[in-house]
Amino acid sequence: MIQTPYLLFLGDAPDQLAAKVAQGIKDWRPEYAIGQFRMEGCKADLGLPDLTLAEAKAKGVKTLVIGVANRGGVISQAWKKVLVAALEEGFDLASGLHNLLRDVEDLAAVARATGRTLHDVRVPSVDYPIANGKKRRGKRMLAVGTDCSIGKMYTALCVDKEMRALGLKSTFRATGQTGILITGDGVPLDAVIADFMAGSIEYLTPDNDDDHWDLIEGQGSLFHVSYSGVTLALVHGGQPDALIICHEPTRSHMRGLPDYKLPTIEQVRDMALTLARVANPACQAVAVSINTQHMTEADAKTYLADVEKRTGLPATDPFRFGAGKLVDALVALA
Amino acid sequence: MIQTPYLLFLGDAPDQLAAKVAQGIKDWRPEYAIGQFRMEGCKADLGLPDLTLAEAKAKGVKTLVIGVANRGGVISQAWKKVLVAALEEGFDLASGLHNLLRDVEDLAAVARATGRTLHDVRVPSVDYPIANGKKRRGKRMLAVGTDCSIGKMYTALCVDKEMRALGLKSTFRATGQTGILITGDGVPLDAVIADFMAGSIEYLTPDNDDDHWDLIEGQGSLFHVSYSGVTLALVHGGQPDALIICHEPTRSHMRGLPDYKLPTIEQVRDMALTLARVANPACQAVAVSINTQHMTEADAKTYLADVEKRTGLPATDPFRFGAGKLVDALVALA
Repeated sequence: MIQTPYLLFLGDAPDQLAAKVAQGIKDWRPEYAIGQFRMEGCKADLGLPDLTLAEAKAKGVKTLVIGVANRGGVISQAWKKVLVAALEEGFDLASGLHNLLRDVEDLAAVARATGRTLHDVRVPSVDYPIANGKKRRGKRMLAVGTDCSIGKMYTALCVDKEMRALGLKSTFRATGQTGILITGDGVPLDAVIADFMAGSIEYLTPDNDDDHWDLIEGQGSLFHVSYSGVTLALVHGGQPDALIICHEPTRSHMRGLPDYKLPTIEQVRDMALTLARVANPACQAVAVSINTQHMTEADAKTYLADVEKRTGLPATDPFRFGAGKLVDALVALA
Repeated sequence: MIQTPYLLFLGDAPDQLAAKVAQGIKDWRPEYAIGQFRMEGCKADLGLPDLTLAEAKAKGVKTLVIGVANRGGVISQAWKKVLVAALEEGFDLASGLHNLLRDVEDLAAVARATGRTLHDVRVPSVDYPIANGKKRRGKRMLAVGTDCSIGKMYTALCVDKEMRALGLKSTFRATGQTGILITGDGVPLDAVIADFMAGSIEYLTPDNDDDHWDLIEGQGSLFHVSYSGVTLALVHGGQPDALIICHEPTRSHMRGLPDYKLPTIEQVRDMALTLARVANPACQAVAVSINTQHMTEADAKTYLADVEKRTGLPATDPFRFGAGKLVDALVALA
């Protein structure tokens, strides 16, 4: 578990997009985002106070989060200087970079000497169990998609935010690096050993209050041949009571697979539901979440109405139009 | 790739069952099984010549294969003495034990000093790619099961043996530790990192002659909540042209999951076929393989006739009655 609140390290980000992890933290956990740390040449700006390490310390920051992609997969000398200073100032470091902080000798040595923790969320820090399939208390929603990178994390986060606003009990359960950095906890499922995938999701979503919702970030797609096994581990380990089907209507082929067309919303619903009912016979597909970012508002609304008519399920873009419909569908189920 | 032929190390096996890996090698690759090495108190016997290390060396043995489970997961001093002597004699070592040879300091040191290789087939030795889903040449059969440990490896091995006997081109593709030790090559899929599972199976079953069959060992079951993700990676990474559905009729619940009933053969066929057609729209379910070891011959034959009638597919127990029907079904497809 990563200690909060955070100082968001933007480094020398060449543009705003490079800082999307930091942006995600600011958007979804503003209470964690005390300030930003930018180096010379940084082209990203989150609109947060620029803080020195000492200022951040004084404001109670516990962890410096690397909220930016690095260039060429190497932690530069300039970055390293700041990261070492942060450890010496008393911060933990958290990173989702492919190259691990722990593999940088200087950082590992300083962390040892200062007693600070390096959180490399790219790799698991827990020995997960084999899934046992036992029924757990509490409610669980899983976002399943027609494709990868289609809005599953945003859907779960939107639902979580809306549920909290309504005073309902919910927890966003991160299964990817960005989600883990946003919330400070979760399972980096794509890096888990095959035999323990479903068990890691059981571990992530344990027994809870009967009226509590775990809102589980989906990964991949049952129809994406590169990652479908990861998705199925979520469907079976997550033991969902409810599925929300996620789709992006303008995509012309599966991400990274030019020869593969996207499945329909109905295909994903039927396949995911059949498989989910192995672990939880009561599971229902309750709603559809559409990523309409590449559509005009008018087109989006027409499309959503069409999806509702075709599927008989409530459909919305929760990021654009609010997650009310999705929350209503979940509450109605419980 | 493990160098053949083998001397099969049975250690101090408490009974014949403890030596089942060695038995599998002898049954399926008798040409690799030059002899056995038994220690004091060994209760297993493969009916192979008992050879000293020097005798085995003289007969051309390249690798000492640990074909026996160890007690309590520890490599005893008595074992270690033999293993060190084997390295010094010039043999590689191969093991599917949970505790790795490479983690035993003495063995690692002697292997380095002698230039020999320690094959721990429990863990991958290759950095597998992410699956790209590109259509590959050659034919592929995948064994899919209603449950784990139900006869998928034996089915693929039986088909391979029959195809070779008929002069057809085939390769058994091992995806588990026992299969890898039997054939000397393969992917330990349950130990692969989630993101690379399907890619590891693409790597295992590359382009081949148009009339060549890869006979892929299945793992888990799409309906086994602990391991289903591993199975789906096989279905998508394997890109099968043909599925053989494997079942054991006397099992009362899913292995390790007392609250889960087995799916029917038809459920597995339909689910696996729908998913397989994402990667290969031409995929067909061609036959059913029944593990009848707990049935009388009469009961087995009645059951098989019933399955053929119900499913419209040829059904046999290939280990008991021969794999002819399965091979015929595959050949008819090609």
